[in-house]
Amino acid sequence: MTGVNAITTKAPSGGVEYRKVDIEESGPLELSPIYTGICGTDKGMATGRLDFAYNPDGQDFIVMGHESICTVKSADSGTGFHPGDLVVPVVRRPGGCINCLAGRQDNCSDGDKHEAGITGKNGFMRETFYDVPEYLVRIKDSALREVGVLTEPLKNVVKVFEVVETVSRRSIYTSRDSTYSGKKAYVVGTGAEGFLFAMMASEYGFDTRILNRHPVEENRLKICDAFGLTFTDYSTGSIDESVDLLIDTSGDPGTFLNFMRKMNYNSIGIMFGTNGKAPAAELTGSDIDRIVERNITLAGSVDAAKIHYEKAVSYLSRWNSVNASALASLITSKRDPSETSLFTERDPNSIKTVIKWT
Amino acid sequence: MTGVNAITTKAPSGGVEYRKVDIEESGPLELSPIYTGICGTDKGMATGRLDFAYNPDGQDFIVMGHESICTVKSADSGTGFHPGDLVVPVVRRPGGCINCLAGRQDNCSDGDKHEAGITGKNGFMRETFYDVPEYLVRIKDSALREVGVLTEPLKNVVKVFEVVETVSRRSIYTSRDSTYSGKKAYVVGTGAEGFLFAMMASEYGFDTRILNRHPVEENRLKICDAFGLTFTDYSTGSIDESVDLLIDTSGDPGTFLNFMRKMNYNSIGIMFGTNGKAPAAELTGSDIDRIVERNITLAGSVDAAKIHYEKAVSYLSRWNSVNASALASLITSKRDPSETSLFTERDPNSIKTVIKWT
Amino acid sequence: MTGVNAITTKAPSGGVEYRKVDIEESGPLELSPIYTGICGTDKGMATGRLDFAYNPDGQDFIVMGHESICTVKSADSGTGFHPGDLVVPVVRRPGGCINCLAGRQDNCSDGDKHEAGITGKNGFMRETFYDVPEYLVRIKDSALREVGVLTEPLKNVVKVFEVVETVSRRSIYTSRDSTYSGKKAYVVGTGAEGFLFAMMASEYGFDTRILNRHPVEENRLKICDAFGLTFTDYSTGSIDESVDLLIDTSGDPGTFLNFMRKMNYNSIGIMFGTNGKAPAAELTGSDIDRIVERNITLAGSVDAAKIHYEKAVSYLSRWNSVNASALASLITSKRDPSETSLFTERDPNSIKTVIKWT
Amino acid sequence: MTGVNAITTKAPSGGVEYRKVDIEESGPLELSPIYTGICGTDKGMATGRLDFAYNPDGQDFIVMGHESICTVKSADSGTGFHPGDLVVPVVRRPGGCINCLAGRQDNCSDGDKHEAGITGKNGFMRETFYDVPEYLVRIKDSALREVGVLTEPLKNVVKVFEVVETVSRRSIYTSRDSTYSGKKAYVVGTGAEGFLFAMMASEYGFDTRILNRHPVEENRLKICDAFGLTFTDYSTGSIDESVDLLIDTSGDPGTFLNFMRKMNYNSIGIMFGTNGKAPAAELTGSDIDRIVERNITLAGSVDAAKIHYEKAVSYLSRWNSVNASALASLITSKRDPSETSLFTERDPNSIKTVIKWT
Repeated sequence: MTGVNAITTKAPSGGVEYRKVDIEESGPLELSPIYTGICGTDKGMATGRLDFAYNPDGQDFIVMGHESICTVKSADSGTGFHPGDLVVPVVRRPGGCINCLAGRQDNCSDGDKHEAGITGKNGFMRETFYDVPEYLVRIKDSALREVGVLTEPLKNVVKVFEVVETVSRRSIYTSRDSTYSGKKAYVVGTGAEGFLFAMMASEYGFDTRILNRHPVEENRLKICDAFGLTFTDYSTGSIDESVDLLIDTSGDPGTFLNFMRKMNYNSIGIMFGTNGKAPAAELTGSDIDRIVERNITLAGSVDAAKIHYEKAVSYLSRWNSVNASALASLITSKRDPSETSLFTERDPNSIKTVIKWT
Repeated sequence: MTGVNAITTKAPSGGVEYRKVDIEESGPLELSPIYTGICGTDKGMATGRLDFAYNPDGQDFIVMGHESICTVKSADSGTGFHPGDLVVPVVRRPGGCINCLAGRQDNCSDGDKHEAGITGKNGFMRETFYDVPEYLVRIKDSALREVGVLTEPLKNVVKVFEVVETVSRRSIYTSRDSTYSGKKAYVVGTGAEGFLFAMMASEYGFDTRILNRHPVEENRLKICDAFGLTFTDYSTGSIDESVDLLIDTSGDPGTFLNFMRKMNYNSIGIMFGTNGKAPAAELTGSDIDRIVERNITLAGSVDAAKIHYEKAVSYLSRWNSVNASALASLITSKRDPSETSLFTERDPNSIKTVIKWT
Repeated sequence: MTGVNAITTKAPSGGVEYRKVDIEESGPLELSPIYTGICGTDKGMATGRLDFAYNPDGQDFIVMGHESICTVKSADSGTGFHPGDLVVPVVRRPGGCINCLAGRQDNCSDGDKHEAGITGKNGFMRETFYDVPEYLVRIKDSALREVGVLTEPLKNVVKVFEVVETVSRRSIYTSRDSTYSGKKAYVVGTGAEGFLFAMMASEYGFDTRILNRHPVEENRLKICDAFGLTFTDYSTGSIDESVDLLIDTSGDPGTFLNFMRKMNYNSIGIMFGTNGKAPAAELTGSDIDRIVERNITLAGSVDAAKIHYEKAVSYLSRWNSVNASALASLITSKRDPSETSLFTERDPNSIKTVIKWT
Repeated sequence: MTGVNAITTKAPSGGVEYRKVDIEESGPLELSPIYTGICGTDKGMATGRLDFAYNPDGQDFIVMGHESICTVKSADSGTGFHPGDLVVPVVRRPGGCINCLAGRQDNCSDGDKHEAGITGKNGFMRETFYDVPEYLVRIKDSALREVGVLTEPLKNVVKVFEVVETVSRRSIYTSRDSTYSGKKAYVVGTGAEGFLFAMMASEYGFDTRILNRHPVEENRLKICDAFGLTFTDYSTGSIDESVDLLIDTSGDPGTFLNFMRKMNYNSIGIMFGTNGKAPAAELTGSDIDRIVERNITLAGSVDAAKIHYEKAVSYLSRWNSVNASALASLITSKRDPSETSLFTERDPNSIKTVIKWT
């Protein structure tokens, strides 16, 4: 592949360029992104704050981008794919550990894996690339063309709920009627990932609250209405005494501990957000008392497996049918690849910004 | 029951007396303790540091003691028990929540339960008491007469490993040969509970280290030898880079976080010890990064169910056959009920002190 | 309630009448069925072939019907429901066993439960009835008004897949890419329940075949097309060597054993259909060999819990958005309550016949 | 290895010889069997009734024997083993499927594995052989020298109970006090494997019955007494109405179905025994009804993983301490390798016959 337009950075030092690149790559399927999403990881790379990012072997740059929805440009026969098919490529590619061998590179046990657009593998922010069927998730519902780029962030949510179902088996976690009715979920953070977590918690039947430490604009409140979520500005709003499922997308120690002190018996706290530069906060003896005496489980969760991408597509399809405009409104802006300033700007009204490729 | 010798305190204010008490109690089985163990909870009550302890309804005192091995003095027909049978009574008695109804009051979901010798129910430090078959765990192996008092602390360990087995299902946690071989367990704390955790980790096949922040005496080192444990004084000893199972019996935030920073991919951290008065320590953004990026699970665990008492008896029976003297040496002293100063003294060589009743 | 039009039978002897009945019943919610479905159980009761059916206490008849979608006519304040809300009432009502207490009366461990329209509780084939919020499943997606009556049969499917997920944990059951891709599911039976099972297997990612021992009409083949299912007439069609998930809706021993002999290593066979009068078939020593040597699991499954109804509603909502006409075509006819001959007729083109009440 | 005394057969045609063989084999550890056990599989091979047995590549014979306890003769440094160590070698060796890669070749998903002494790999009935550390299970408890040969049959039992724990999670299976107290287990068959299953069921707390269709001799009744088992001659004895755990070691369809008709709600039936030549029996529509209506699970189980061998050693150690003579009496005779007629004789008093090698 020569002379392909791509958005690149130099990992881990940063900087962003939209330029033509030459890349050695081949495969039975040629793909073109329709949209690629920008998330905190991309911005962290662009500004040189992501120490663990690195370029592919033999390159002094890396093509950015791990959130995408693509269309098949050409496909070898026997791949099962055809030109025009909608697909989402899997971000993480396996190493040799037993979790990787079982298709669970999201649970890689030795760190020997690669992530497209982040660690040692070129990402999807380019006009065209090659891939293999094994790492492509098919989107059959053509109505997802505009919102399917949310599959990648949503797959993280699907995995988290698998983790919740697994760890919650240590006690009877559901309500007396077998459902999650009456159970309270708090999702900390009002970014795209926060909303996707909250939508899923609500889908499961939790009484779901989404929180931030400041008020939010009308666009976010409308999404709350559509999906039955309650928004709380916790800098001023009052918080219920107990929470059964706490999901943190902030990565901020003080914020996490603040809500951890509301955790109920047998409750589960999910740590998803990361923010290594956030200020430290005090973990007290009483905090540990609460975790012990209430049989609380805290679980970190990163990435997800192909099965979670597939389920994410199903959830998107359903939400798109029931709440199409609210779901679509998570994507607050569609921009041109040349607008590289997007990687360094901060816009409080933005939920998810995507780059439009075709 | 009138004029029964008992060790009592006034909860939660504290103080210890050995004296005759009158208690309204009845039941189809009359029991006499052989030994009752003293643990940190008892000492906390004696010194008024346990805020959540409370007297039974209508009493201005509570009989202490939750660790015991008892003998049946008399038994109504149909109870399935006979005079002379060895039993361990269950500490926690159920309330009305669904976990309590399923015999899992250790996972009580609303706090509406009672604990003998701690919260609202008289304990076992008395010459005689009444109980029902449902809450008695039978010890058939008569060789456990001297060490069976360890059933109660060991049952906590059994539950913790059930929790480990449950939460570890979120990834492939075992080694490539299906065992725990090559997996590292660190147990923080060298009290009786710490040793029981370490023995169990070793039984499971973990490469097991038991740690404290100071050297330990010969008696503890001998137990390590017998059970294949490595002792590390972590104030000076070097610590391996990664741990797969971290079990904390200290309840000390700084200690816990120190070792949490060694946790491996997919690793599990158990919080068992409590020490509400311990100094706080800083939880950093990088700590959260590690928990997230490595899919780490942290789980508090308290108490255990009757099935865990039963399994604890089995483990004691086996360890008693293979390593009798090392197991027995966990019980460092057998004392008279009148020696109430035991509840306030501190003896570094002591592992488990028990009171001899008959 | 006096003079309410209802479809009744005398259990277990049979017969069907559409007539006015007087029933003692009250509750905070008054409900009116929109549609009630007719299934094999209803026909079995009508023809006196269901030995376990019985009338409610003090009645010499039982109102039939357990599949329904209803509308709320009136609701006491505090119930959380409002006139016009769409709901599906739960069929099975709990007894006193621990599974019932946990909201899992579908797994009742002592048989002491009741089923609306079948065992000791009046069903939903009547103009109006009373119920309590605990047993009502809300349908928010108003587009489900016409197909929501499929919630009840679909909830059985949702439970079965929960069972599959649980029992499959005894080995690694998924494919090397973490999904069910490449795994084969066979669903035996082309009734409504068979199609719902097949749709779900396909949703999970199984390569799904639906089978019967005769050809089927165009209406069924169209549903296959829409949901990516392969139909096989196994009286003539060739069958692949191995199946990973076998689901039987026939209850016929010979049919089940025929396909069991195709079961793969670590495969799962679900027994859902019942047909007590079916001819027996020979279970051989080689059959047992296969089950043993291949670590095969066979699981019977009946009914489902409220959480499965809720998930069924979600699946219906999604399928209704992606394949509306194919889903709707499962309901082959909408009839008047007075047409009681429906309970004894047999129409090969019919998939699901429903009664229209309002 | 040349001129090594070994017991061989020609697979699958049969015959047994004790003779000198030359075998190409090497490895860091040289081992000598102390005892090797004879089971039904060995007898099946000897008499040519085991169609799936086959010789190793390039041999026209196979060394028999998969049950053994061995001593290390010599060990390369770095293996972690030393001369004199007691070990049990793992029977099944992995192929390339994902279960094999995870150390779970007992759940091999494609049949591409080998079993020592049965399918394509020389067994342990020879003076000496070579192996690698990965497939050796260490026995530290030297008291197990005489009974450690039971590790191999017991490891199958350990796996079965893992399967029981996994599949039973589909409902609440334990009693109201969290234990298996009051739950009934039936073990069909009074061979060594039957007794090991029954001992384990009793260990778990099941009310355990061991059954055969004829009376048994005093030696078996004494083992029942020692382990708290009830023996029933079901040709005459009455059988309780319901069983919660049914374990069949007969492989006989009629026997299995007979007891399956006693299975309780949520009960589990384990198929372990195989007998391909047994007469077929009728599976009826009512049988399927029962499996469905009662949410019954039936599970075949074969072989076990290294972790199950390790746990088997622990159980043996405990039973050997509590019931040494009863456990030892499972081994009814210790014979010389030259007595090859053992492979074709039938002795009703025999439970487990072993060959003594050193």
